[in-house]
Amino acid sequence: MSRPRAAIVVTGSELVRGERTDRNGPFYAREALSLGLVPERILIVGDDPVDLEAALRAARESPVCLVSGGLGPTHDDRTVELVARVAGAALRVDERLEREIEAVSRSVAERLGRPYADFAAGVAKQATIPEGAEVIGIAGTAPGLVVRGGGCVFVVLPGPPGELRRLWPAALASEALGAVLARTVPPSRHVLRFYGASESAVARALAEAGGDGHGVEATICARDFEIHVDLVVEPGAEERGDSLAEALRGPLARHLFTEDERTIAEIVLDLCRPQGLRLGTAESCTGGLVAARLTDVAGASDVFAGGVVAYANDVKAAELGVPEELLAAHGAVSAEVAAAMAGGVRRRFGVDVGIAVTGVAGPGGGTPEKPVGLVHYHVSAPGLEKGREFSLPSDRETIRSRATVASLHLARRVLTRSRHEVV
Amino acid sequence: MSRPRAAIVVTGSELVRGERTDRNGPFYAREALSLGLVPERILIVGDDPVDLEAALRAARESPVCLVSGGLGPTHDDRTVELVARVAGAALRVDERLEREIEAVSRSVAERLGRPYADFAAGVAKQATIPEGAEVIGIAGTAPGLVVRGGGCVFVVLPGPPGELRRLWPAALASEALGAVLARTVPPSRHVLRFYGASESAVARALAEAGGDGHGVEATICARDFEIHVDLVVEPGAEERGDSLAEALRGPLARHLFTEDERTIAEIVLDLCRPQGLRLGTAESCTGGLVAARLTDVAGASDVFAGGVVAYANDVKAAELGVPEELLAAHGAVSAEVAAAMAGGVRRRFGVDVGIAVTGVAGPGGGTPEKPVGLVHYHVSAPGLEKGREFSLPSDRETIRSRATVASLHLARRVLTRSRHEVV
Repeated sequence: MSRPRAAIVVTGSELVRGERTDRNGPFYAREALSLGLVPERILIVGDDPVDLEAALRAARESPVCLVSGGLGPTHDDRTVELVARVAGAALRVDERLEREIEAVSRSVAERLGRPYADFAAGVAKQATIPEGAEVIGIAGTAPGLVVRGGGCVFVVLPGPPGELRRLWPAALASEALGAVLARTVPPSRHVLRFYGASESAVARALAEAGGDGHGVEATICARDFEIHVDLVVEPGAEERGDSLAEALRGPLARHLFTEDERTIAEIVLDLCRPQGLRLGTAESCTGGLVAARLTDVAGASDVFAGGVVAYANDVKAAELGVPEELLAAHGAVSAEVAAAMAGGVRRRFGVDVGIAVTGVAGPGGGTPEKPVGLVHYHVSAPGLEKGREFSLPSDRETIRSRATVASLHLARRVLTRSRHEVV
Repeated sequence: MSRPRAAIVVTGSELVRGERTDRNGPFYAREALSLGLVPERILIVGDDPVDLEAALRAARESPVCLVSGGLGPTHDDRTVELVARVAGAALRVDERLEREIEAVSRSVAERLGRPYADFAAGVAKQATIPEGAEVIGIAGTAPGLVVRGGGCVFVVLPGPPGELRRLWPAALASEALGAVLARTVPPSRHVLRFYGASESAVARALAEAGGDGHGVEATICARDFEIHVDLVVEPGAEERGDSLAEALRGPLARHLFTEDERTIAEIVLDLCRPQGLRLGTAESCTGGLVAARLTDVAGASDVFAGGVVAYANDVKAAELGVPEELLAAHGAVSAEVAAAMAGGVRRRFGVDVGIAVTGVAGPGGGTPEKPVGLVHYHVSAPGLEKGREFSLPSDRETIRSRATVASLHLARRVLTRSRHEVV
């Protein structure tokens, strides 16, 4: 059984001009994939009606078309009108929807102290929908719709990503999309996350195991300095999926750090939690990014106590107790200072685990001995210390991100070992 | 004169599946716009050759087609072959290019300790390019190409965003693209950035001034809790562009914070620098994000000394000198504690300006009095103190971002006033 294809059409002038990065296309694609559909393309167009209509016409060739944006009250917002045309459906005012939008608009008018008359045309416009469309909810004054026509089910949701995600479950529950999904079997997935292996080493291991195909689709994706492998396994190909996963685990075992979707920050926190370890950070070139990653995780506070961003040398000395003579002898970017920072945050904050980073993020500040991209990082834990360095001639953002990820992975390794060997 | 249109085609399986967000499409679009081209659509497809060929055929209708990805050494990487087919050009091995790719591959083989024979097929594949194509450079082993055919100039660059951006200037310097650009006149731009105004207030001010059109295209875009307005002005419409910009400045003057593309972090640093002010941060719920934004700016170190991430209450007391009784009386999320944190980092770090944030980022930890989304922030500067709060029932990421941006904008306001009134 071949899986039904899904086309994705995203509309928004600021998106097609590159002023904002689209988040709805990737969301729709991931959702489609997990439902057993094949996302075949993501097309981003502006508000030109000719471009948008052409996009919808091409999308109609697929059994499912997921549309975002262009649902506002003004004449520029033409998505509903054009979906109706492409689906071959007449437009009509839905009176119940009109009353609902009117109520929202009246309260907005009141809040803004403007006459409702200013809003009336917009209300009529937004309540005008294709004959037979299912109204699955409303975001502000914009209705989400599911429209069947021309052999295609169009799901039409508003552009703001939060609204689109909120209405998506209702689209899944709609009759028209439900009928398509009844014919699909969601694939299963293997998730493997590697750190420290190259993308080509992972690709080679996959190729040596026979490669993908035959019901297993593999993506190997370098993301955030990790290698993320996803195996999407068609129903019936589970055995082959398992054996491919096993073939990747074998030669790359020491780089495999998780088989779920937790971030490295979540993993570090999860390693500390059962041991009751408290964690602190001491950052120079990463300037708070390590702490920000950790606190990005809800519930971080039972493990993460806090940290120091010691950007200036006097702060390293005063706040982390890094000896002036150490700074003078080795320079702020050195293995010695990284170790002193990690130890310093443990002592000063009374925490069990200290993560420290110091480096040259550039573009200025490099020297022949300590070039831009040189980073020292260190993790100090009960019974185990580990320091590492890398040198990555790159831009400031890349160097800082790499340093953030590398220090968290070092913490993972230290915590994994100390748990087994020391605690 | 109507501006030539540009179609953008991005290929990558992980992109069409939503596993990674495309950055090349938005880059190409912004560049096209600034050159006087009209980006008409961004199409993201996987590595299915039928989908990719269809995308390239549709794109051929435009005078310029900007392509990214699918240039690797394996059989899945079909972009060059399909561009050749669509452009009506025969494929041939470019011997000079082959020697260049071979040299790179030999050194990679040596580094990996593998026989060069493993790479030979890939080298021949990557050196096979359309007749008449301009080779504009090489990224790893992948050549960047400019290909003319079927009335369209195809710019074909590798998928890794850093490589694409590095080769882009060479594409601009190519003969074929240069010939198209010789016929365009880049538009001029007005940039206006507002903070604290609603998107609809900005839209209303624009509408009341006559709206866009007649050679001026306006985008109003809420981004990072700011409202970014871009007026793209066709040659000849400068006067109208100026008057629209003026019409926005008037009613929204107190919200306008810049007319250039500097981030709020850059602006805060730029306000400190001429006065020789040093800056420090004291963060609870933002967990390092304010410091990370500031240190994201190259050269931040002459202003930013460092900060404390005081996530736990004992850290607020010990590292920032927030009195225990203040914490007990008002709670960690309070105007009083925010003020004490800002003052604390000034004293402890010996800096002139302290920025402090404390709040409930959620999803847990809210109470009826202090719900999730309540944030207090405070800026302490020589001769001026200011504290603010907001309550935004939302998700953790949104609350933390909003708190970060709000505290930086408060610092901007305090620094602007203290410069005029106090210093």
